[in-house]
Amino acid sequence: MTPVMTAEELNEFMREVFQQVAEDFNVDHVGEGEVTMRLITSDRHLRPGGTISGPSMFGLADVAAYLVTLSQIGPQALAVTTNCSIDFMRKPQAGVPLIAKARLLKLGKQLSVTDVLLFSEGTEAPVARASLTYAIPPRSMG
Amino acid sequence: MTPVMTAEELNEFMREVFQQVAEDFNVDHVGEGEVTMRLITSDRHLRPGGTISGPSMFGLADVAAYLVTLSQIGPQALAVTTNCSIDFMRKPQAGVPLIAKARLLKLGKQLSVTDVLLFSEGTEAPVARASLTYAIPPRSMG
Amino acid sequence: MTPVMTAEELNEFMREVFQQVAEDFNVDHVGEGEVTMRLITSDRHLRPGGTISGPSMFGLADVAAYLVTLSQIGPQALAVTTNCSIDFMRKPQAGVPLIAKARLLKLGKQLSVTDVLLFSEGTEAPVARASLTYAIPPRSMG
Amino acid sequence: MTPVMTAEELNEFMREVFQQVAEDFNVDHVGEGEVTMRLITSDRHLRPGGTISGPSMFGLADVAAYLVTLSQIGPQALAVTTNCSIDFMRKPQAGVPLIAKARLLKLGKQLSVTDVLLFSEGTEAPVARASLTYAIPPRSMG
Repeated sequence: MTPVMTAEELNEFMREVFQQVAEDFNVDHVGEGEVTMRLITSDRHLRPGGTISGPSMFGLADVAAYLVTLSQIGPQALAVTTNCSIDFMRKPQAGVPLIAKARLLKLGKQLSVTDVLLFSEGTEAPVARASLTYAIPPRSMG
Repeated sequence: MTPVMTAEELNEFMREVFQQVAEDFNVDHVGEGEVTMRLITSDRHLRPGGTISGPSMFGLADVAAYLVTLSQIGPQALAVTTNCSIDFMRKPQAGVPLIAKARLLKLGKQLSVTDVLLFSEGTEAPVARASLTYAIPPRSMG
Repeated sequence: MTPVMTAEELNEFMREVFQQVAEDFNVDHVGEGEVTMRLITSDRHLRPGGTISGPSMFGLADVAAYLVTLSQIGPQALAVTTNCSIDFMRKPQAGVPLIAKARLLKLGKQLSVTDVLLFSEGTEAPVARASLTYAIPPRSMG
Repeated sequence: MTPVMTAEELNEFMREVFQQVAEDFNVDHVGEGEVTMRLITSDRHLRPGGTISGPSMFGLADVAAYLVTLSQIGPQALAVTTNCSIDFMRKPQAGVPLIAKARLLKLGKQLSVTDVLLFSEGTEAPVARASLTYAIPPRSMG
């Protein structure tokens, strides 16, 4: 499970391929089958009261699961989420960055399965957990 | 399962309570334990190629489950999503409105469970399905 | 979505391939992308008080999703469940047969997605809902 | 998160309350918000080929989530599973005990959320992961 892409390469890949969302996220760390990243919060991620919205939490978990998959198979713009189950457990703290810790549980030829915990930075109890399945397309041969 | 709020009242409630997102959604129809609504697509909901993003689909399903719950219990700003499971099955059609059909499967004192199908308008095969659980807070007594 | 296997053929297939569980289930009806079947309840499916156990409900949903997939692609012993999300909503009635209504939402080359509602026979409110994903192996060529 | 019940007390509780299933399971270890337990495999848990069936894996995850909740709140026969999402990732090894590692992610007044990984004993890669929500009934006052 040695990664084939660095945090810098994953950030670069996002900026090239998902220009619209790349400014919302930053990969902080890539490990063996693990990625830690953050939501760069702006007004459009917030609900009244200043907490981060459900779709923004989903979006962070989704990108983290995608990038931890890519960190093992290399840059592929075409992988698609097929399933997500997410539990919202606590209200995120207002004004505190949201951190995702993604852990790849399975990397098969056709599917990857990733576990993601979301935290308000500096807090031990997770605000949400998610598991996501990605469909990996057959590799194009060169 | 006769609704206690009309489509107009649900739209009005969104505009009051979730000003930031209300312009993204419209409730088209309220039935017995059922709500049909749509995403009013703008650039920030789209991915390169013009298809609707995963977080936008999640957001529509989430709001639809919330509003079908409210249509039965009346306006309560405090209900919270505790769980969502979503399957992304087909790519939404570019340039076509996204429709949610939400059906309330259970309305208990503490929890509601809702099934949502998402469609590109005018297409029979659903692009996604979701099930969502809402925690209903104890009613404040007047 | 015209089925390629009848209820009788699905029951026959279960008896051949899953001898151990075939006596637990019966397919009642096969429609277009739909299967209705039942759990033939015996003591080992019950909890104290006579209600049907969670694993037995899961098992019925799982078999129903499998058989509705087979009803469209023909007998294949090798399809495997990759994901299940299940909501337990009401206590099943003691002494009443448990019915599954499975509806195929997607049949792709690699995956099928099925929605299942479970009912105590004769009752309108579902006791559980489940969605299941099956991985379909590449077809062997003759 | 210091547990209020030991492994021995959880095993004893199962034998008293769920006599029918208690012989299928054994709690090996209780930690802070964590329980490790095993399926005591017998013929009825197996599929042709000797691998453990899906419902048996579900059943082990379900009991593990229940017992890790009880380990924190004390013996309560009435907690009920409201939701389970499970990913089946690898085939369990035939003839090898199935181990569950359950970790409590949230313990609220009304709900607990637990993460479970299932392993063939002695193997590092999990065969399945599950997340489960339990509804905790209001405590009876003495």
